Amino acid sequence: MNTLSATTAFLDEAADLLGPRGLTTDPERMDAWLTDWRGRYTGRALAMASPASTDEVAALVKLCARHRVPIVPQGGNSGMAGGATPDETGTALLLSLRRMDAIRSLSPESGQVVAEAGVILQHLHDAAEDAGMRFPLTLGGKGSATIGGLVATNAGGTQVLRHGTMRGQVLGLEAVLADGSVFNGLVPLKKDNRGFDLKQLLIGSEGTLGIVTAACLRLLPAPIGRVTAWIGLDGIVEARTLLRHVERDMGEALEGFEVVPAHCLDSVLAHLPDARSPLAGRHKWNALIECVSAGADSAALRERFETSLAAALEAGMFEDAVIAANERQAEDFWLLRDSISAAERAIGPAMQHDISVPVERMPEFILAASPAIEATFHGTRAVAFGHLGDGNVHFHVLAPPGSVRGEWEESAGKDVSARVYDLVCEWGGSISAEHGIGQMKVPELARLHDPVALSMMRSVKLALDPLGLLNPGKLVIASPAACA
Amino acid sequence: MNTLSATTAFLDEAADLLGPRGLTTDPERMDAWLTDWRGRYTGRALAMASPASTDEVAALVKLCARHRVPIVPQGGNSGMAGGATPDETGTALLLSLRRMDAIRSLSPESGQVVAEAGVILQHLHDAAEDAGMRFPLTLGGKGSATIGGLVATNAGGTQVLRHGTMRGQVLGLEAVLADGSVFNGLVPLKKDNRGFDLKQLLIGSEGTLGIVTAACLRLLPAPIGRVTAWIGLDGIVEARTLLRHVERDMGEALEGFEVVPAHCLDSVLAHLPDARSPLAGRHKWNALIECVSAGADSAALRERFETSLAAALEAGMFEDAVIAANERQAEDFWLLRDSISAAERAIGPAMQHDISVPVERMPEFILAASPAIEATFHGTRAVAFGHLGDGNVHFHVLAPPGSVRGEWEESAGKDVSARVYDLVCEWGGSISAEHGIGQMKVPELARLHDPVALSMMRSVKLALDPLGLLNPGKLVIASPAACA
Repeated sequence: MNTLSATTAFLDEAADLLGPRGLTTDPERMDAWLTDWRGRYTGRALAMASPASTDEVAALVKLCARHRVPIVPQGGNSGMAGGATPDETGTALLLSLRRMDAIRSLSPESGQVVAEAGVILQHLHDAAEDAGMRFPLTLGGKGSATIGGLVATNAGGTQVLRHGTMRGQVLGLEAVLADGSVFNGLVPLKKDNRGFDLKQLLIGSEGTLGIVTAACLRLLPAPIGRVTAWIGLDGIVEARTLLRHVERDMGEALEGFEVVPAHCLDSVLAHLPDARSPLAGRHKWNALIECVSAGADSAALRERFETSLAAALEAGMFEDAVIAANERQAEDFWLLRDSISAAERAIGPAMQHDISVPVERMPEFILAASPAIEATFHGTRAVAFGHLGDGNVHFHVLAPPGSVRGEWEESAGKDVSARVYDLVCEWGGSISAEHGIGQMKVPELARLHDPVALSMMRSVKLALDPLGLLNPGKLVIASPAACA
Repeated sequence: MNTLSATTAFLDEAADLLGPRGLTTDPERMDAWLTDWRGRYTGRALAMASPASTDEVAALVKLCARHRVPIVPQGGNSGMAGGATPDETGTALLLSLRRMDAIRSLSPESGQVVAEAGVILQHLHDAAEDAGMRFPLTLGGKGSATIGGLVATNAGGTQVLRHGTMRGQVLGLEAVLADGSVFNGLVPLKKDNRGFDLKQLLIGSEGTLGIVTAACLRLLPAPIGRVTAWIGLDGIVEARTLLRHVERDMGEALEGFEVVPAHCLDSVLAHLPDARSPLAGRHKWNALIECVSAGADSAALRERFETSLAAALEAGMFEDAVIAANERQAEDFWLLRDSISAAERAIGPAMQHDISVPVERMPEFILAASPAIEATFHGTRAVAFGHLGDGNVHFHVLAPPGSVRGEWEESAGKDVSARVYDLVCEWGGSISAEHGIGQMKVPELARLHDPVALSMMRSVKLALDPLGLLNPGKLVIASPAACA
């Protein structure tokens, strides 16, 4: 669509379809949504559409297909990889799902909730809690992240160890496809072998294969007991030994196993005014472990956990430990963990990498990659923290002291990232464990991913979006179909 | 490939590639594999290839692509829907994976095993047991079913309630694609957001998108305690109430919840010479419940289960119950359950339907569908048994007494099945919960499935197998690409 008159015709039709609340071209109303929340990507858009129903989304996508208008779907605009920001050409329509924020149904009996794409994660948590249930996925952006975005990016968080990523929570899915047809897979069937798992294909496809409009999600009974411990260890290998030990003893009760190196804890303690270290001494590594029991009392859980930790201490797996005396103290432990990114950012420029390797190889990866990076890039410091139990850490490389923020990231920082991703691939890992590819990692994915997998993705993308209108430039770049 | 000389050229090249053990055209050696094990489908094949490695499979598929030879992959030939039987034209190559039967690695520490496609399920169970672990999926055909076939059909079984279908067991996958390239996704990453979940796309695709050559599967610690109960109930609604009650009390320990109507138990008791009813009285419905504990002793599990059942009895949820006194008795209970199909078949002709509806609707579905079928088809009897906890029952319709075996199934039986499937779709269910589509249900899938989902499947099939050489005629029929 190139001419002004064609654009006007499209916008007129879209305005007729969506009404005044459903479409805007006002720069002031659009502005906040054209830059990602971390301020890394800024784009332009023809207009911002805010449909109120699946039918409206479907009609709008049909209209876009007819006019060849690219579509950038957006939820809470809290993604980490620029996946919801349009490019700079201004030819795309920004499609906000935020108005579709109804919880269509919630059944504690069947443990199911049907939420529209625009439902904010925190609202879902609240609704579940009101019904005596819980939704077992949470993350830092829960106040803005929407269900649609969480599904489209297969979001993770701190409870993946036990409950899996978003992929594991979705029982049914509704999505609008590139031709405006509606994939209606909302009714949850525990067993269904009618061919390809199209639901799983759509989850994590970052809006490039379809636009998620609603999801049926699983709910669990609210946990009754939670026991949280902060552990001081001499090394990351010991942390893995402790993980295996606690897994064996606590089984399904183990929900979180996060690791924090001394450098990160120091940074947080310097950054947060009232923060205190949970342990008296300083340890090379720390582990934050959480166990949860549904349906049992927390005294029994605590006793079991204490017994397990006592045996681990006896076996020399760690140096010191404290179990949170109450909910308040448990929250304080988690606050330390959740403040690492902000604290490290406050120190100076850094490159952050959301990477995974097979769980059992993670300690060796950290022990090999950190000194390798620091040796190659003089003055840098590599710190790794996060979800040891998932084989997923945030691997941050801090710039040499005195580096200029904004400059270092664009120069030496890029070389650092390329080297980190090379190492990750050498270890059989993933250059995006949680955050997705978006626009940020498209070149690195093309450079480093298995060519066979890339080719499959391009074929599937072309097959389901032959005009290339769904979130173009994100995740996988496919040339238009040869026979189009 | 039409001419005799072209066929000869292909077979010569294939023989060079695979060697004498790897290729045969001997009718006697091929014969057993050209008819499915239930004897419903018989086909012909150009030859039977038995490659010994992934490289050989890849080279063979490349050769087939060059010569346009269709490929029918086959594991243990124990599928339920004719998915591994070639058609009658004799133009396809039967590709047996049975020679690829190595367990490449097994690690109790990481709870992972890498098994080639031809590994028989029972052998995997044995290998896991030898290492103090278990593979949490089992089914009747475990003595012949192979890992490749189980992955390709997303097999289920009796422990899906707790552990999920094959889809939930696969941590990594290796497969040969239509062009002979190898999808290498064997290294298991707990978190990986590098785009579409190609592994899940291949699982359950019945060999139409790629040929599974190996899988990395999860292992669990061997269970220490198991407690099995046989329950007599007044109705199927009561069975659901009991299911919810036991789920609440036993949580993750609940592994099996099967239902058996009186008619099925009667048939089994008449069919098995030494079988005895677990309970003194006759009940309209029976439930077989199994709880398993890993890492705890079975006395505590039994006590918890007994307490839960006592409360359920108090609340009037069932009429009578017996807990197996030992392993032997537990096995006897399961033998009753596992003998239903054979016992019902012995009575006379019947149409069997592997169907699911949402778990919470299953009792109402059975109460509505059974009399509806019996009223429409005079003299028939509808019985439903199986995995209530998964919303998946085997819905059998027995022919009117005196019906001739082989004739009834081909005439009135077909109308019965069409009506059963209509009802299932009206209830939002699936016409194939476990067994897949194969060649058996292709017409019903085309008739009853969501046209949007069907269209997506056809597009994906064409994209990944543009020449239509992978298991043609199965699952989804896609016309050749318009631009081929």
